[in-house]
Amino acid sequence: MQLEFLGTGAGVPGKFRNVSSTALKLLEERNSVWLFDCGEGTQQQILRTTLKPRKIDKIFITHLHGDHIFGLPGLLSSRSFQGGETPLTIYGPKGIKTFVMTSLHVTETKLSYYINFEELDTPGLIYDDDKFSVYAEPLDHKIASFGYRVVEKDHPGELLVDKVKAENVPFGPLYGKLKKGETIELPDGRVLNGADFIGASQKGRIVTFIGDTRKNDNIAKLAKNADVLVHESTFGKGEGELAYSYYHSTNIQAAQVAKKDHVKKLLLTHISARYTAQMARDLEKEAKKIFADTKVVKDFDEIEVPFDKARRV
Amino acid sequence: MQLEFLGTGAGVPGKFRNVSSTALKLLEERNSVWLFDCGEGTQQQILRTTLKPRKIDKIFITHLHGDHIFGLPGLLSSRSFQGGETPLTIYGPKGIKTFVMTSLHVTETKLSYYINFEELDTPGLIYDDDKFSVYAEPLDHKIASFGYRVVEKDHPGELLVDKVKAENVPFGPLYGKLKKGETIELPDGRVLNGADFIGASQKGRIVTFIGDTRKNDNIAKLAKNADVLVHESTFGKGEGELAYSYYHSTNIQAAQVAKKDHVKKLLLTHISARYTAQMARDLEKEAKKIFADTKVVKDFDEIEVPFDKARRV
Ligand SMILES: [Zn+2]
Ligand SMILES: [Zn+2]
Repeated sequence: MQLEFLGTGAGVPGKFRNVSSTALKLLEERNSVWLFDCGEGTQQQILRTTLKPRKIDKIFITHLHGDHIFGLPGLLSSRSFQGGETPLTIYGPKGIKTFVMTSLHVTETKLSYYINFEELDTPGLIYDDDKFSVYAEPLDHKIASFGYRVVEKDHPGELLVDKVKAENVPFGPLYGKLKKGETIELPDGRVLNGADFIGASQKGRIVTFIGDTRKNDNIAKLAKNADVLVHESTFGKGEGELAYSYYHSTNIQAAQVAKKDHVKKLLLTHISARYTAQMARDLEKEAKKIFADTKVVKDFDEIEVPFDKARRV
Repeated sequence: MQLEFLGTGAGVPGKFRNVSSTALKLLEERNSVWLFDCGEGTQQQILRTTLKPRKIDKIFITHLHGDHIFGLPGLLSSRSFQGGETPLTIYGPKGIKTFVMTSLHVTETKLSYYINFEELDTPGLIYDDDKFSVYAEPLDHKIASFGYRVVEKDHPGELLVDKVKAENVPFGPLYGKLKKGETIELPDGRVLNGADFIGASQKGRIVTFIGDTRKNDNIAKLAKNADVLVHESTFGKGEGELAYSYYHSTNIQAAQVAKKDHVKKLLLTHISARYTAQMARDLEKEAKKIFADTKVVKDFDEIEVPFDKARRV
């Protein structure tokens, strides 16, 4: 599980940061990629990575500002052109379907795959399978804006094969029963409890995406205990009032969330073109004073989302 | 007057060619820039040039395929964000207004300037002022597709000041009358005819844009005597049937048009990503056998549109 940042700028594309898009690579976990926002030029950014558009099977849109959605029609068309045939689901505020369908209709585009639209109305669980759950909560932006929390389910412990072998358990169905945690009786009469032969399970990882928003209480619901928190940082230290009036957040507010909600790593994005490279380093430095494991990300940064070894359950 | 190529690829963006957009720079002539098509990422390409979005006051769309229009909403938004306040006119097939207005509506974008939409229904003259006329003709693509012919009006001859001075004409209103071609009487009784004191006028330039189309008879109406013909070249030599079935043209067909219609210079664009750099050079080489002044353009190529000195009138 890795994050790959395709666009880390704010509002309009700049020479060094494209508009918003972040890929959550779940190749080992489900051989697919989830995209969070899709600003104009996202498909061109993807050309400079190893990502394959046809592997994208979910796109989560935080809100309907142009810098977060104008790359969608092009990416969807190219995914079809490049032979994508598997369905794709788009989650986002009401209106996303109209935008996409109008774009496809006007251009007479017939996609080679089916798009399922999930326009969000009620917050909470929006997706669930045997490996992942996704939660959404409304945030506080000028227009409807959602944050997302991706929760990987815990990985069950592995069968401790060496320990089983040491007990001279005959190969075959008994192994499977032990693996399921059942109690078995061996041909020689000994009784073994599966629970003693299964390693610790591994806590699943949590990645939270907080797109454009003012500081607000719903952020905590999504960010709590996240292994990685991706948070917008349109403004800097001392600009809290500006951030409020433009419906955005500061680096300091993001760091305070990370600290209060026991996040492991904070990644700041949605960086304004007002910030030079040096100023962006300062954004990071100031945030680090509050929350040490903070990084201001750049386009094409790739960040591993590690298992928390301390969170074996 | 220069052409600057912002996207010279076909269908989908590639690593080396972005999707379609060409700027006609009319900075000396009218301090503005006209854009022909606006594929996704055009505003990002513009960031790598000296073009200013607020100077773009006309956008001509050849047809509504995504690779020719998906960059419009972003460019229009950024033009506003960057302080553009002067009105802009968009010409194109029916449907372009719905696409743009839906994009602006869904994103709740309020532009700082007015957009005038001219959806083309009848061919012929679509714009006329004291310096330029623009003509459009329907071509033959899978969906409605228009070619455009930009005709600069002839530049009137300049007053030959040295010749006037040699006649000892007193400074003042008599100069103005000569410049207008009037006959004047000098204080010493001599009579001078303005026509004798005005240099040759200069024939205006013609630039023709032939977007996605099959070979067809309307192309001649637009291309005739053009100083520069920009023509799509999606297919190569020997691929006439493929081009026909995909509603496109070959390099050879474009060169034949250039030759037959007495064009001065042919620029081939809309080059498929199937073509390597070497193959693109071959496209050019084969076309040159028919029409010598042919060039396959690349992204960011800038081409001067010179006055034809032989066409003084
Ligand atoms: Zn934004
Ligand atoms: Zn095209």
